[in-house]
Formats: sequence, structure tokens, C-alpha cells
Amino acid sequence: MTTIKATPITAAAFAPFGEVLTARDTPSKMINAGKCERHHALATVQRGGGEAIISIFRSEPVSLPYECRLLERHPLGSQAFMPLGDQPWLSVVAPDEGGRPGQPLAFIVPAGVGVNLHAGTWHGVLTPLDHAADFLVVDREGDGVNLEEVVIPGVTITR
Amino acid sequence: MTTIKATPITAAAFAPFGEVLTARDTPSKMINAGKCERHHALATVQRGGGEAIISIFRSEPVSLPYECRLLERHPLGSQAFMPLGDQPWLSVVAPDEGGRPGQPLAFIVPAGVGVNLHAGTWHGVLTPLDHAADFLVVDREGDGVNLEEVVIPGVTITR
Repeated sequence: MTTIKATPITAAAFAPFGEVLTARDTPSKMINAGKCERHHALATVQRGGGEAIISIFRSEPVSLPYECRLLERHPLGSQAFMPLGDQPWLSVVAPDEGGRPGQPLAFIVPAGVGVNLHAGTWHGVLTPLDHAADFLVVDREGDGVNLEEVVIPGVTITR
Repeated sequence: MTTIKATPITAAAFAPFGEVLTARDTPSKMINAGKCERHHALATVQRGGGEAIISIFRSEPVSLPYECRLLERHPLGSQAFMPLGDQPWLSVVAPDEGGRPGQPLAFIVPAGVGVNLHAGTWHGVLTPLDHAADFLVVDREGDGVNLEEVVIPGVTITR
């Protein structure tokens, strides 16, 4: 069993997999007579000929160490997850190696911060840490097969 | 000056303007081996030939009574707002009457609950109540004029 250590998410480390959804250091512009910062287009929904939809996922938590045995990906669309609670969560992703997931990486994502996974990015199931949580999810609906699942040799993710 | 009373949001009352983004009484389906409720497609992004984008708005608050003097609408796309904090917020909308906004309505929206405004829905600027707040915003980017603003005879919104 391989063991990997979860690390704090950064935009640079996550860039191969998607965007980190958080306010930038400087807003794109001020709106509403200067009363509102717009941090514009942190991500664009990839919808592969379908439509962008907004859902809520309500997930049971996991705790570390956590054993990950399943990865999935959505080849036709991006998938964004934004936590609605006040707890950090875990994002597990993996590079693609010839159509199969390579070695996973695990990121600790702070409360109030989301991610947008690019189309085709291997990732684990939704894993809030220690507390059940709701997430706003923006992903793709339309024709075509948009789910691949792969059972992997288990990896143990630790703090 | 007209005075209107803000009322708690309900899906039925808000239906002419858009969807309320909150978990349903019963999830659409269970995913992740039964560990996650998917409340599927609470809203579909209207993108009027453009693309769906994900942004964050960080807004100063208002307090009630609040005087609303400006409404706007986006004729080409929907616009969803999901609060990321733990405080209620205010959604001001108005019916269209021949291309101009009619009498506004004001809804108190609980923490953790969002709205998706349909394309062309007259609405006030983003108004968290009493505390500055971040919102995840899903709206439309693309060619064309997607903003109309109208100064209205002021309405005072009270609790």
C-alpha cells in the first residue's frame, strides 16, 4: 500500500488539474458603485456540447488516514466544487498516464475555497474532512458518456 | 417613497424570477457508494450563445431599512449567487412591465441558500445583510450587451 501525504492546496500545484476557486489578491474590477469586488471568471465551465448545471452535493465525511481505492473522471465536462460550510476538505486528483490514472496527489483545501476540475481530470469522490458538508457543484449535463471509473491499487492518504 | 417588507424566500414565491438553490427534501440520487446525496440540476445556466463562468463577488453589506434606487438585468444570461458565509442576505427582484421593472419584491435568504436569476430578471445589486460576504457567482460571458440598468423611484425595504 502506497502512502501519500496531503499538502495544502496552491494554485500552482493544482494547475495541471484545474483552478482553485478563491478570491484573487486583487479583484478584477469593482462593481456596484465601489461596494463589491468582482473576482471575474476564476473558471470557465467546459460543457462539451452540453449545458452547465448547478447542483448541491451533501456528503458524508472521511477522516485521515483515508484509503483511496477509486478514481473517476468526466471526459466531456469540467466539475467545480465549492464548500458551503466552515471546514476544510480533501481534494484527491491524479495525472493521466495513457488513459489510466497515475500516482494520486492529495490536497487539503481550506473552508471557503473550491476547485474546478478540468474535463478529463482523474479525481477521487467528494471528501469533506471529519464533518458532513454541502458543496455547490457546477458541472455538465448532456448526451454522451461522461463518467469513467477506475479501481486503483489503494493509496493511504495521511496528514 | 414606497415601503416594502422583506419576506422569507420560498421556491414558489421566487419562481417567476428564478430558482432557489438549496438541497431538496429528497436527493435526486445517491452517489459515491451511498455516501453522498446529489441534488441534481437545481438550475441550468442560461448562456445566450456565450459560456458559463464561475466568479467570486466580495460585497459590502447593507442594513435594513435599505433604500433601493437601482435595478439591473442581464438579458442574455442567468446569474446565480450562492453565499459562502454564515449570514442571511437580501435578494431584491422585480417583474418586468413592458421593458421596465415593476414593483420590487424583497426576499430574506438564509445562510447556505442561493438563488439563480433567470435571464432578463430585474434585480438589485448584491446585498448581504449587516456583514460583508463572499458569494460564488455563476453567470454568462460572451458577445452582446448583457446589462441594462434602470434608476427607479426609491423603495424602502424593511424587515
